[in-house]
Amino acid sequence: MTVCASAHLTDDERLDWLRLIRSQNVGPRTFRALIDRYGNARDALAALPQLARRGGASAPGRICTRAEAEREMVAASAAGVTFVALGEPDYPSRLAMIDDVPPLIAVRGELAALTRPTVAIVGARNASAAGIKFAERLARELGEAGLVVASGLARGIDAAAHRGSLVTGTVAAIAGGHNSIYPPEHAALTDAIAENGVVLSEMPLDHEPRARDFPRRNRLISGLAAGVVVIEAAQRSGSLITARMALEQGREVFAVPGSPLDPRCEGTNKLLKEGATPVTEAADVTTALRPIFERPLQLSAQEPDHLLARGEPKEPSEPTDDQRNCLVALLGPTLVGIDDLIRISGLPPAIVRSVLLELELAGRLERHGGGLVSLVPTI
Amino acid sequence: MTVCASAHLTDDERLDWLRLIRSQNVGPRTFRALIDRYGNARDALAALPQLARRGGASAPGRICTRAEAEREMVAASAAGVTFVALGEPDYPSRLAMIDDVPPLIAVRGELAALTRPTVAIVGARNASAAGIKFAERLARELGEAGLVVASGLARGIDAAAHRGSLVTGTVAAIAGGHNSIYPPEHAALTDAIAENGVVLSEMPLDHEPRARDFPRRNRLISGLAAGVVVIEAAQRSGSLITARMALEQGREVFAVPGSPLDPRCEGTNKLLKEGATPVTEAADVTTALRPIFERPLQLSAQEPDHLLARGEPKEPSEPTDDQRNCLVALLGPTLVGIDDLIRISGLPPAIVRSVLLELELAGRLERHGGGLVSLVPTI
Repeated sequence: MTVCASAHLTDDERLDWLRLIRSQNVGPRTFRALIDRYGNARDALAALPQLARRGGASAPGRICTRAEAEREMVAASAAGVTFVALGEPDYPSRLAMIDDVPPLIAVRGELAALTRPTVAIVGARNASAAGIKFAERLARELGEAGLVVASGLARGIDAAAHRGSLVTGTVAAIAGGHNSIYPPEHAALTDAIAENGVVLSEMPLDHEPRARDFPRRNRLISGLAAGVVVIEAAQRSGSLITARMALEQGREVFAVPGSPLDPRCEGTNKLLKEGATPVTEAADVTTALRPIFERPLQLSAQEPDHLLARGEPKEPSEPTDDQRNCLVALLGPTLVGIDDLIRISGLPPAIVRSVLLELELAGRLERHGGGLVSLVPTI
Repeated sequence: MTVCASAHLTDDERLDWLRLIRSQNVGPRTFRALIDRYGNARDALAALPQLARRGGASAPGRICTRAEAEREMVAASAAGVTFVALGEPDYPSRLAMIDDVPPLIAVRGELAALTRPTVAIVGARNASAAGIKFAERLARELGEAGLVVASGLARGIDAAAHRGSLVTGTVAAIAGGHNSIYPPEHAALTDAIAENGVVLSEMPLDHEPRARDFPRRNRLISGLAAGVVVIEAAQRSGSLITARMALEQGREVFAVPGSPLDPRCEGTNKLLKEGATPVTEAADVTTALRPIFERPLQLSAQEPDHLLARGEPKEPSEPTDDQRNCLVALLGPTLVGIDDLIRISGLPPAIVRSVLLELELAGRLERHGGGLVSLVPTI
């Protein structure tokens, strides 16, 4: 298989990728499994109905049509949004390493900001005046130190972080589509961000963000960055979810200390107790991240370039009904590791992966982080 | 040598100890060296003039007379102050382990508080309202958890820590004498402290504290405790000195996080960066200290009980003039380790220690922490 790091998709391939990721029951991990199995998105699309049927779907999942994908492309272009595919040169190299990397990102702005050293700043929406002031200052100083600042466009700390780094470059990872900016009053801020930075979404252009989209989006904020600075975060807040994702992704976690009497600092102080690096000035961040930026990125086993390699598909592993039934019997609503499934079933790994893919496309399987899967409970 | 952990000094011995520690050029370390060499305070007192002369003193240092010591004893008794000697059962066991342990402490109050598990709370004099509130709450909760709270009677955090633990027991280590409480407005507070706790001083009863007495006093605060909690401390503040002494004494250091925009939190946040344990509630302290309190105290090599053992004095090592001159030539205003002096001079350790003792009593040598000494510059 030829690895070509500077490959670009053709327009047709990009359309197929968009169709595939926009099809029902296809998430980032399924997308990857399908390309692994079929070698390209077009063949994967063709195989979807059969796979879903084998997985036990009563009705096949809805496949995004060519016309729909073309309409999204046209609308995106009109909105100044382009699609960058995993493996293409403009794709952020750290984001490419995460477990559930989005195969296509919809981006608007100065794309060069996507490939520069990046640090994330996140925090409370109901931040204190001091917190907002500190966030803006820290973002400005980190920007002046040569870093791009990533955040989530939320009210409070996020917006302050973007504002502080508008000139030097900032990336906003948003939970909805580009035509459905949330909160609405930040529409003007996104225009300012796009001047020297990027607004980034993995969602369809008109997608209105729902509650569950925000934790999903948080993995992009931490994924873009080598480290995440949390400024003011209550217990059980979204910022702590971002910090947890950062840890899972092997990112540095920084926390700004605050008064124990301020509930907005409970989350950040908890992070400090758990070993996060305290931050009171930009140098605390740059000192810790410099060696990380100086190290070449370690490509993971799931090295993204091969997605564009247009190589031969892997030998399609066709599971038998017995194998399928055996695995379904082993699965349940409790999370189980794919490794354990392989070991306990005694089946070849390729067969297990094929069955899981089928079940997922049938809407019967959920994938979680860390190689864990569970059966979707049927009521 | 017989070790008798529950030994008490006789009244005569206590008077000799008081005379010796109140004599010129005799600090805690010299006191120890003298007892080591002469076996008891009376013989050490008798040897002082000769030792100082050998050390090159133009005039012998002033020796505290028996009458003076008796007057201090009487005045102390009138003020409700008693003297506890190192090695006596009421002497705080952790304080007994420090390098420059005071041989006699003048104490007033409920002496049982001296031998209970202790934690120190120190912080800014110009503390914020939030800091004072937090200090008082933390002290109360630590007291309720069974700990004695030690602090330094200063305005701000110290006073709040004492107030919060008046009922459960608190120890104030003061820089002046018992009849010269500083700040004066805390005289009433010392009375309240003495109800269930202790006011402690190593200074003569009427000693008015000077600036240099406060860092010296800080070693007692940390020395009494298994850990020191710092609440609000600016850069280069006395609280940071206490934290540094705590580290040198092998104590745990805790710091309460605070806003990076508040200069009163610069010192505490710096401690966090250096690895201090963050504290936002009493459990953070008790959890960290519990295993330490459960461990039996490791007696150091300089085990204090032998001071009361009334054993034979060590073979007095009489340095020759050549040996004395050799060492003086090696010494200078730059700090040097006693170990290095022994190695470089090639002299027996007992001889080196004897010469240093003589020089110190002659007012020509200064001892620093960590076994370092330097010659006092002559103008």
